[in-house]
Amino acid sequence: MHEKLLIPGPTEVSQEILREQSRYLISHRGKSFSDFYRGIKTKLADFFELSNYYKSAVTTSSGTLWFDIVGRSIVQENALVCVNGAFSSRFAKTIQGCGKKVDILEVDWGKAITTNMVANKLESGNYDTVVICHNESSTGVRNPIYDIGALIRKKYPNIIFAVDSVSSMAGDKILPVKIGCDVIFASSQKCFALPPGLCIGVVSERALKRAVKIPYRGSYTDLIKIFDFEEKYQTPFTPNISLLYALDKRMDLLLKETYDCVYERHLEMAKYTRDWAKKNFALFPESGYESVTLTCIKNICRKKIGSLIEKLAKRGFLISNGYGKLKEKTFRIGHMGEWNVNEIKEVLGLIDDLWKL
Amino acid sequence: MHEKLLIPGPTEVSQEILREQSRYLISHRGKSFSDFYRGIKTKLADFFELSNYYKSAVTTSSGTLWFDIVGRSIVQENALVCVNGAFSSRFAKTIQGCGKKVDILEVDWGKAITTNMVANKLESGNYDTVVICHNESSTGVRNPIYDIGALIRKKYPNIIFAVDSVSSMAGDKILPVKIGCDVIFASSQKCFALPPGLCIGVVSERALKRAVKIPYRGSYTDLIKIFDFEEKYQTPFTPNISLLYALDKRMDLLLKETYDCVYERHLEMAKYTRDWAKKNFALFPESGYESVTLTCIKNICRKKIGSLIEKLAKRGFLISNGYGKLKEKTFRIGHMGEWNVNEIKEVLGLIDDLWKL
Repeated sequence: MHEKLLIPGPTEVSQEILREQSRYLISHRGKSFSDFYRGIKTKLADFFELSNYYKSAVTTSSGTLWFDIVGRSIVQENALVCVNGAFSSRFAKTIQGCGKKVDILEVDWGKAITTNMVANKLESGNYDTVVICHNESSTGVRNPIYDIGALIRKKYPNIIFAVDSVSSMAGDKILPVKIGCDVIFASSQKCFALPPGLCIGVVSERALKRAVKIPYRGSYTDLIKIFDFEEKYQTPFTPNISLLYALDKRMDLLLKETYDCVYERHLEMAKYTRDWAKKNFALFPESGYESVTLTCIKNICRKKIGSLIEKLAKRGFLISNGYGKLKEKTFRIGHMGEWNVNEIKEVLGLIDDLWKL
Repeated sequence: MHEKLLIPGPTEVSQEILREQSRYLISHRGKSFSDFYRGIKTKLADFFELSNYYKSAVTTSSGTLWFDIVGRSIVQENALVCVNGAFSSRFAKTIQGCGKKVDILEVDWGKAITTNMVANKLESGNYDTVVICHNESSTGVRNPIYDIGALIRKKYPNIIFAVDSVSSMAGDKILPVKIGCDVIFASSQKCFALPPGLCIGVVSERALKRAVKIPYRGSYTDLIKIFDFEEKYQTPFTPNISLLYALDKRMDLLLKETYDCVYERHLEMAKYTRDWAKKNFALFPESGYESVTLTCIKNICRKKIGSLIEKLAKRGFLISNGYGKLKEKTFRIGHMGEWNVNEIKEVLGLIDDLWKL
């Protein structure tokens, strides 16, 4: 039996999208490809309201590649990395693993990074890059990147602001121009509701001006090489053409639904899930900082999460336990991509039934 | 009209394989995934006759990622890189771009790197890694990696031998144990006849022992991180599950055909194409070093390659002009993956017809 995915990724992908991948391949160096890829880039620019100061790229990779891209091509000497969960922690370790100095601004899992915290660090330290994870999939916390972006753009014009939007872009409100970020990226298997294998990135001219000065960027992690080819509507290395077919179709669907309606649909699912969670349990994230694309629920009733997941899977839906150290302490419901509130109601109703809530 | 791909990659992929990608996604952290992925790894080990000393990994990336992996996780201080075409040149530049010292052993495009050349360099230099491209897609030259591997294993037990087999593995004879290499990898869109987006790598224990000592491996380019997860039949970052479905199916087909028959089929196509080329033109590669998976033909009759490609495309087949500086001087026919000699005969017959050969 097929288990529909409500985990924080990969999320459920419809047959309509999956079947796009069975279109025949074309040469990635021909005019047909460039015309096709230009179309995708235009659609990305439309949907995310990009100005000319911002450029998009699609890499054949998981989202984590962009942690390395930031480490290899963006951080000059010293990055401030905001850490409040497993993925932001990985981002910090990756930059350190690229041989760059990292100062970590850390709060407990479940708490948000506030603008004041970042302001205080920036006043006392000397950073060339600020890194944050917008939507921590491990804790369901959503950090206030618009306010942090405004602070950086106002007071620190030379700092590069890099945002991991892996599980929020194309679901939550993500407009790079308004955030004032310089690097932002998302994985295909989250709100874009595609199979995993692509990462959609948007960078500012400021980021490219920085990158050109950084030595030892390698090849696969070289932002300059990537954008040299993006200029001619190609990719430096053979891209996953099948998944690009699916991305093209997805962008058509997103544009048809419109940016505002996509967000409203996600917010509606989030609100319903939060209300359900508050009625029966408690929310894990600090109040006011709850993710719009996944809900992390505190298991205050000490329910057996593993057992629920198994039983729910038999009814055709897969949700997720807590991440790492939160395994039995929380559980997570991803409501991103193709899902709508009626389907979420059905799944939560099944949990009511199984747990007799 | 669909143009069937006889370019050096991506190669043609059948609907049977493409449609595997429309299977529903599963969680990459569940038991179902690990069972499935273990199956792929077992099939890779069977087909390539891997001993316990060798381990496989599949990364969600183009082949070029592995240039970076070698640069970041393998080369300690000083690599000898054999260069005889565009891709080996990129490999050398990538390792330099990772901040490692590179000594280049270069011969003219069209020439092969011989075992004597490597032996001479190794006698005089102090290298921790030797890098070679087995099958240079830019020139159609096939380097003698079995002899070079034997030399290294006999006289330089500590040297890591890294082989780019991007366009030869699963078509030409590639048995890592017999080559004695430590790192070897191939892209999905060449002889594996899958869409682009995966890279299949095989490494020796010697390579992993080296990697653990190398600082600043990053995350996406960290061989140790990759194999920590491979041990539990997972990948460190969300993999392209759709393409893994297709790879699994491809391994079934390859095993059914058998390793020897796959090679014989490729050799038969290569021999037919070479004979045709020698009758009408000349081969670009040095005699005795011709690729088994693609043929690079010297345009001694000064035919208009661009015009032929256009006309042939209208008949439903796409071949390739020369690479970079060889654009009008050579043309290339890829005969890899799903193709067989009868289909190659048909395509060459069409060229006879168009060019009145």
